[in-house]
Amino acid sequence: MSDLRRTVERFWAAAEARDWDTFADTLAEDVLYTLPQTRERISGRVRYVQFNREYPGDWHLRTERLVAEPGQVVSWVHFKVGLEEMYGISFFTGDEEGRISAVTDFWPEPYEPPAGRDHLTERY
Amino acid sequence: MSDLRRTVERFWAAAEARDWDTFADTLAEDVLYTLPQTRERISGRVRYVQFNREYPGDWHLRTERLVAEPGQVVSWVHFKVGLEEMYGISFFTGDEEGRISAVTDFWPEPYEPPAGRDHLTERY
Repeated sequence: MSDLRRTVERFWAAAEARDWDTFADTLAEDVLYTLPQTRERISGRVRYVQFNREYPGDWHLRTERLVAEPGQVVSWVHFKVGLEEMYGISFFTGDEEGRISAVTDFWPEPYEPPAGRDHLTERY
Repeated sequence: MSDLRRTVERFWAAAEARDWDTFADTLAEDVLYTLPQTRERISGRVRYVQFNREYPGDWHLRTERLVAEPGQVVSWVHFKVGLEEMYGISFFTGDEEGRISAVTDFWPEPYEPPAGRDHLTERY
């Protein structure tokens, strides 16, 4: 089992650098991308690279946290597009060559705290 | 280093069972809970147990995925409250006794896919 953690580090560094050859090299040919929030899926390396390449805006990212075990990695990434900042959480699965065979992304949005719990919480 | 993965499994099983003594036992006394989407924080075991105990609704959960390395665990949990279903993603940090010293939660909501990418995606 190759080091999927290192593959995911390369994946994000290549995305930030718009180095789409290196980015493609981190992916299995039949990689499956899933977005549960929109119920969208993208099948295969060619389409998934194109999706990232065409993603609009002058976005920049930095990795906040990586958690890795053999064959599975989770990243928490901080994205900036102009003045907008957001978090992306991605679950990666690897194949035997240490390439990424599946990515599932979550994009949580800010929301107002529900009433009735400010006796326990503080805002920051 | 004790097994934080097992601690997190106990944490979720105890929450689902409303077994607040076992739940409290998985937590460091100075556990810090953070919700980046609302910018809320809760400090300490007593308040954090109370927050979970008082959480409204007849909620039920099952763990979809756990990714663990020494001292760090991520869980992806599926929540159901009545007819509403949602995902929760939690980043856990452990202390030397294998208790949970920090939890950071994300609660991504469904949204409509942006226009202009349906040549690459399929819906499911």
